[in-house]
Amino acid sequence: MVFLGAPFDSTTSGIPGQRLAPRRVREASMELETFDPTTGRDSEEADFCDAGDIPLVVDHRVLTEVLGGIAREVLTSGKVLAVCGGDHFVTYPVVKAAAEVFGEVQLVVFDAHLDLRDEYPVRCKYSHATVMRRLVEEVAQLRVVYFRPRAFSREEWSFASSRDNIVIAGDAENLLSSLKEGYKVYVSIDIDYVDPAYAPGVGSPEPLGGTPEELVAALKALVGKRKSEIAGVDIVEVNPLLDAGSTTSALAAKLWAVILRELSAL
Amino acid sequence: MVFLGAPFDSTTSGIPGQRLAPRRVREASMELETFDPTTGRDSEEADFCDAGDIPLVVDHRVLTEVLGGIAREVLTSGKVLAVCGGDHFVTYPVVKAAAEVFGEVQLVVFDAHLDLRDEYPVRCKYSHATVMRRLVEEVAQLRVVYFRPRAFSREEWSFASSRDNIVIAGDAENLLSSLKEGYKVYVSIDIDYVDPAYAPGVGSPEPLGGTPEELVAALKALVGKRKSEIAGVDIVEVNPLLDAGSTTSALAAKLWAVILRELSAL
Amino acid sequence: MVFLGAPFDSTTSGIPGQRLAPRRVREASMELETFDPTTGRDSEEADFCDAGDIPLVVDHRVLTEVLGGIAREVLTSGKVLAVCGGDHFVTYPVVKAAAEVFGEVQLVVFDAHLDLRDEYPVRCKYSHATVMRRLVEEVAQLRVVYFRPRAFSREEWSFASSRDNIVIAGDAENLLSSLKEGYKVYVSIDIDYVDPAYAPGVGSPEPLGGTPEELVAALKALVGKRKSEIAGVDIVEVNPLLDAGSTTSALAAKLWAVILRELSAL
Amino acid sequence: MVFLGAPFDSTTSGIPGQRLAPRRVREASMELETFDPTTGRDSEEADFCDAGDIPLVVDHRVLTEVLGGIAREVLTSGKVLAVCGGDHFVTYPVVKAAAEVFGEVQLVVFDAHLDLRDEYPVRCKYSHATVMRRLVEEVAQLRVVYFRPRAFSREEWSFASSRDNIVIAGDAENLLSSLKEGYKVYVSIDIDYVDPAYAPGVGSPEPLGGTPEELVAALKALVGKRKSEIAGVDIVEVNPLLDAGSTTSALAAKLWAVILRELSAL
Repeated sequence: MVFLGAPFDSTTSGIPGQRLAPRRVREASMELETFDPTTGRDSEEADFCDAGDIPLVVDHRVLTEVLGGIAREVLTSGKVLAVCGGDHFVTYPVVKAAAEVFGEVQLVVFDAHLDLRDEYPVRCKYSHATVMRRLVEEVAQLRVVYFRPRAFSREEWSFASSRDNIVIAGDAENLLSSLKEGYKVYVSIDIDYVDPAYAPGVGSPEPLGGTPEELVAALKALVGKRKSEIAGVDIVEVNPLLDAGSTTSALAAKLWAVILRELSAL
Repeated sequence: MVFLGAPFDSTTSGIPGQRLAPRRVREASMELETFDPTTGRDSEEADFCDAGDIPLVVDHRVLTEVLGGIAREVLTSGKVLAVCGGDHFVTYPVVKAAAEVFGEVQLVVFDAHLDLRDEYPVRCKYSHATVMRRLVEEVAQLRVVYFRPRAFSREEWSFASSRDNIVIAGDAENLLSSLKEGYKVYVSIDIDYVDPAYAPGVGSPEPLGGTPEELVAALKALVGKRKSEIAGVDIVEVNPLLDAGSTTSALAAKLWAVILRELSAL
Repeated sequence: MVFLGAPFDSTTSGIPGQRLAPRRVREASMELETFDPTTGRDSEEADFCDAGDIPLVVDHRVLTEVLGGIAREVLTSGKVLAVCGGDHFVTYPVVKAAAEVFGEVQLVVFDAHLDLRDEYPVRCKYSHATVMRRLVEEVAQLRVVYFRPRAFSREEWSFASSRDNIVIAGDAENLLSSLKEGYKVYVSIDIDYVDPAYAPGVGSPEPLGGTPEELVAALKALVGKRKSEIAGVDIVEVNPLLDAGSTTSALAAKLWAVILRELSAL
Repeated sequence: MVFLGAPFDSTTSGIPGQRLAPRRVREASMELETFDPTTGRDSEEADFCDAGDIPLVVDHRVLTEVLGGIAREVLTSGKVLAVCGGDHFVTYPVVKAAAEVFGEVQLVVFDAHLDLRDEYPVRCKYSHATVMRRLVEEVAQLRVVYFRPRAFSREEWSFASSRDNIVIAGDAENLLSSLKEGYKVYVSIDIDYVDPAYAPGVGSPEPLGGTPEELVAALKALVGKRKSEIAGVDIVEVNPLLDAGSTTSALAAKLWAVILRELSAL
């Protein structure tokens, strides 16, 4: 797994600060223990490389070029790419790169929101709130499977309902059965999937969310069944400026450890 | 119950600030109600004495002398000693004192971590992360029973597995059956046992923790069955500098009220 | 004076959050008294209209269209335009609009920095750190007069030194003598001109800055002598996320009151 | 100049958190411009090496061994050692190392306090408040020159008055005339020398302090006259946990840039 920080938050419509997450998530990871006695695996012993951060940029076009180029290179090499955002727009260049490299891609999204707006905020076509819309429109062979989203606009819901290649899964079984076998899977985790009690450091806290345990169970089921098909993972929208006790960064760091351990299992 | 503040945080490896907890926990306790209609008991009517704080010290050797001396005195008098930390190293002098006074001691630990490192941080043998290791090594007649820990290094897990006098309990029944009858019990509660959602003000937030309800239920079961054997209790690792809304201090204050009510029941 | 909030921070290279300033500066202004006994003037009685905020946008091109359009309209009407940023890039569309409306424009800049970078951050041509460079290059009839800047890169200093239409003034007298008479003046105030002691809520705190008194004295001298030539003013780079006590917002609000009183004097 | 972070705060008697300063001061330095047009010098072009941080330790004895060993090595090599604390106790191992390497050492101290307590807090002989007392007692050939201290206990004042090798200088001229020529000079800057308005992020804010300009002027005078004699410099007691707007870290970073430029001048 190649871990890459993407300190970018120029398209967020809430409180910005996600550019600080890569650094803070790494710091939080220093405080976490790494051994899992139930499997005997230690995330410190897993195949892992921290490639550092892409340079800070403040224009989504520049991000697309810079991050897209690196993503293509890593994915072509056959390594799993782990992107630590940044706002949710960082998923855009990475999934486009994955589609170029692999053809059909299945995108699994853990997020409170659908991010299927056509424009948001006003007159902005490329942002953290339109990222899935742009991907669906621009990437022909993309399937998107959402896991238990809970916040919708009427427009987004209509759009999702009208598309065959968008699925909303209500549980892990449903998620797995929605994925075709033999195709690459990319997993995008907006930390606001989790309830704000567990992840207060987010730009758009949406109440009535899932617990970290539910997310971990779904990730374990997904990676356990499809390990060889996982092309990449991102965790986005952690905002350290709103995370006084660093609990959101610690949760993101823990999720990375879980994913790393699952991917490293024989 | 003799309540004693131990404003000490010089051995913490995360963010320090636990020295501020005794004052802040007392402040938070002023805001809590005290009556429990299910039992008719009021923690304000319990047998309780606030002995103030030990003086601030910044060297673990000095802490050991100062806090150890006071602990011996209180425990010898037959009173239950309640220590409000401070980082987890404050447990060291108190349990050593208990072993001197009572001989065999059973230490029940609520903590995300095992604190069984041999050295942590580098070259430091006496710290909040080695406290249980030092106690196990230095106190011959100690038994340690952990309640649902969740963060391990491989080294700690191996050490714990190799020792007959270390038990890891998965539920309250298991906890109680692991304790021999007729021996003194000391309870050490690291507030990071609880999930960071409920206790964000900690130096090493570890996700996927228990709820306050689970902790309270286990404490009630433990104290209910072994009230006469309880020699002392500590609650440690509350860090007010990372506790913007004082929720962690309030949780610690509530736990003290619960423990006090249980200990005061006829 | 038409007061317009510009909640935009997508081009900042430091800590973002300046989008929150228009709301917070208005709130801080509610707490300030308005009467000046030395002149008998009250800023509440001045000719003032709060036009609200432009909509939030997250792309500098969209900002340029939206804010540029409104600025042209206000300036054409002959009203003084007061822009409450936002990061320093908001000056770009407003000064371009002023040049379209008035032809030659004299831009007076209070700022710790020159903002004359060619690209900053990497590969980004339009940002808060390049705004003056772009204006100098793109607006033929612009003169820029800096008041006591104190933080330079070698590249910026060379660029400034090579241009006849860039002047660095060391005091208020020098500032006034650098301005040609009969041409419109636009004043841009980056709050980090002031020492971080007085304005801690900024993305790039630069020590050894001026006092609020020095800034107010220079503003009074400037507006007093050139009142009829003032086309617009902006105050930018207040970051409420870094302004725990709201002192930076309060200072910005006070500066607006001073400017408003000066402009309203007969 | 060899720059070394010393993330140590286990002996502080106020609010801890100084262990976070090396990282935060470096981050703040990224936001500062580096060119000085009055001299044509750029701190980015100076002879400088960032040696990283010593490992975190939580015992003053371990700090003394680890930091003392590295300091001896750097000082023996003839490089100027720059130590970024940490609490003020980090000066202890470095000055002891300097005395071992150079024999007589002249220690210039910028600090609100004298740090000449015999014990502080109670029963603690080695702490940030006793550091100068221990050095004076243990290092035979040490001279200490304080620059404008302002906070004293009677005991400290008596001790200082009774010693020939302790001088209190009231201005830069006095400071320079108090230093004998031909001996090595070590400069220790406690950031609380500066008034809390400019340096709020400190454990013991002491009002009525100097301005950054005064400190910079004294440093320039000192380094300008004694450049070849400077053995090392430290800046200590920055506490990022109390520095919401990062102004204290920014001031420390600026002081490092000034010192580096002065040391690099021909």
